[in-house]
Amino acid sequence: MVEFSSNFRNMRSSAIRELMGVASRPETISFAGGMPNNGLFPVEEIDRIIARLPREVKQVGFQYGPTHGYPPLCSALKDFLARKGLPIENHELMMTTGSLQALHLIDRVYLDPGDVVVTENPCFIGGIAAIRAHQGILRSVPLDEEGIDIAGLQEALDQGPPRPKLLYLTPNFHNPAGIVYSRERRQAVLSLLPGRDIVMVEDDAYSELYFEEQDRELVTPIKALGPNPVPICYTGSFSKILGPGFRLGWLLAPTDIMKACELAKQSIDACTPTFSQVIAHEFLVSGQLDRYVAFVRGEYARRSRIMREALREYMPEGVRWNRPRGGFYIWVQLPRGLDSAEVLQKTIAAGVIFVVGKTFDPEARLNDRFRLAFSHTPEEKIADGIRVIAGAIRDCLS
Amino acid sequence: MVEFSSNFRNMRSSAIRELMGVASRPETISFAGGMPNNGLFPVEEIDRIIARLPREVKQVGFQYGPTHGYPPLCSALKDFLARKGLPIENHELMMTTGSLQALHLIDRVYLDPGDVVVTENPCFIGGIAAIRAHQGILRSVPLDEEGIDIAGLQEALDQGPPRPKLLYLTPNFHNPAGIVYSRERRQAVLSLLPGRDIVMVEDDAYSELYFEEQDRELVTPIKALGPNPVPICYTGSFSKILGPGFRLGWLLAPTDIMKACELAKQSIDACTPTFSQVIAHEFLVSGQLDRYVAFVRGEYARRSRIMREALREYMPEGVRWNRPRGGFYIWVQLPRGLDSAEVLQKTIAAGVIFVVGKTFDPEARLNDRFRLAFSHTPEEKIADGIRVIAGAIRDCLS
Repeated sequence: MVEFSSNFRNMRSSAIRELMGVASRPETISFAGGMPNNGLFPVEEIDRIIARLPREVKQVGFQYGPTHGYPPLCSALKDFLARKGLPIENHELMMTTGSLQALHLIDRVYLDPGDVVVTENPCFIGGIAAIRAHQGILRSVPLDEEGIDIAGLQEALDQGPPRPKLLYLTPNFHNPAGIVYSRERRQAVLSLLPGRDIVMVEDDAYSELYFEEQDRELVTPIKALGPNPVPICYTGSFSKILGPGFRLGWLLAPTDIMKACELAKQSIDACTPTFSQVIAHEFLVSGQLDRYVAFVRGEYARRSRIMREALREYMPEGVRWNRPRGGFYIWVQLPRGLDSAEVLQKTIAAGVIFVVGKTFDPEARLNDRFRLAFSHTPEEKIADGIRVIAGAIRDCLS
Repeated sequence: MVEFSSNFRNMRSSAIRELMGVASRPETISFAGGMPNNGLFPVEEIDRIIARLPREVKQVGFQYGPTHGYPPLCSALKDFLARKGLPIENHELMMTTGSLQALHLIDRVYLDPGDVVVTENPCFIGGIAAIRAHQGILRSVPLDEEGIDIAGLQEALDQGPPRPKLLYLTPNFHNPAGIVYSRERRQAVLSLLPGRDIVMVEDDAYSELYFEEQDRELVTPIKALGPNPVPICYTGSFSKILGPGFRLGWLLAPTDIMKACELAKQSIDACTPTFSQVIAHEFLVSGQLDRYVAFVRGEYARRSRIMREALREYMPEGVRWNRPRGGFYIWVQLPRGLDSAEVLQKTIAAGVIFVVGKTFDPEARLNDRFRLAFSHTPEEKIADGIRVIAGAIRDCLS
């Protein structure tokens, strides 16, 4: 037997994968997947776009494209990002095969085994996986309702050797914590960075999905709040504003970092799907993306309201959760002593699933939390599912 | 400045990239890109497929899919591969974001820095890039017209420590050498493998593109020629039989290897574009793929004939080239002492480009060769381009 590389000698499969069998049964009520509901996709809009694309443009969609992306899409997306206040000068934009690939590329060009990344706790599992894939060490800092804990962040940044090379944050509608960083917390993060030899990665997959117009300003990326005291790599995605099946994300990064990321991508998949990019370009420049996002904002806001109402109605005392202002997630905290894995065991038997908290914890400790996604579940099943989970929690309490 | 990881501290950009500026000028005659001509893509067929797909199937195409691929496509593709004689039992099939990603994944799960891969010389540049991306060492073995040199292969396999972990071969319509392995050479490769602790990777992106019906048997994969004395990972692609812009390749591998590759993919892009997979599935199961491939075989055969006729007409004595029986490439050998980079300098000035031989040589030595792709160039420009190159060679000779 040829030995696997050091990274694959002790393979772990993720807890989410183990739920897949249950999730695929039609009677299951799933709060597990962080994905849009199939019924919400802009299928007719994309049908019309494809039908009207000139033959020559379609041919370009069938062909290899530049590693950094389909030029008209890069150009339109740069304008889109500039309107968010993001710096475009001395920066390059690259289309990636999902924004997870952007995270993977940054980790790839910076991390040797044993290098440290400061992350939030809880943390997006794709972010954790990409760091671990490069044998990076996660140094995680707790979140509260306004963002990352600033004293904890300072300590994590100061600690060493080894000093951290990267700081990975998700300020908008955090997966799984559901929170959005306050403006003050964003500024506090920025104020910790001057003079440090670190690269910050700002993962912004959800910022379009604010529920109230008044929060439009709140989601302004940290990268856009002023001069960047350290290099900030900004990632985003079409997964939540068109559909994950197109596998389209992006990376906005200072030119020197992008050169390395582009080289890394060349040995991974050469270029991002051109056919997807041609479609996304037309969706963006025709204004249909803006109209669609306005529509899904309302849909997700309503689903989150239904879920919160059900939580208030059914959950026993001592269970707490956030009120999301956008995104896909509610993060639930159980009364002390309860283990969400035990709750899940009971709800699986009743056909209801969610993701346990320790999945998102680099230290694998947050047993008393779990993530509910309201994005995917049919509206009329949300209350039923919450009732089942509440019942299981009561069982565990007694 | 945060230091890049050890892999990116001395970045190199590929020679092909440097040609891109020239290649994009409309007056350029390019034999550089290993890609189909835009005019050959099955645009109308795919338009009809998209127009007729049921809404529910389209919604699936907008959504995340399983990491291993869209189940109906995996199933249909397994049947397609079984008809080539490939073993399906104890094997798994995974859809990858281009077949380059399949190569990247195998290298990722096997190679630690300094591990050795035996390759052909010349070798597909994507294969070289994927190995180098994992800091693997290439130990390359010359090709002749029937395939890899067997004495050289035996020596490379026996040499060590370190013993090679992987053997990477492209038996069908080699990129860039243009050759196809003879049946005897395939058997000779197999006969060298028993008892060795090695994994073979068989890259088969071009096997559908044989020019003569009589060669259908010749392209039977090594993996299909009998019991596999060592694990053989087999990779293929929709890039040449549908279009590279969909970024669809596949990996057929023994189950234990696939588990590691699937885990590796989870941290790179989570899943292969579902929208592309839904389209490819319909293209395959409707029989349109077979009809389309029959059509492009004739197109590439004619282009190769035109190129060979022009070579015979214009090239000075002492220049040699293969007669391709399929695929995209003619591999040209210059008279001793001539450097293809010098020839290219002259032809660039005249608006004609190709790729110099050392690009494909892990030892960066094959200065007296170059690759001509006939797949991309408009038919009516092929002879003109060859005439320019022949003139440049004459200039260099005198």
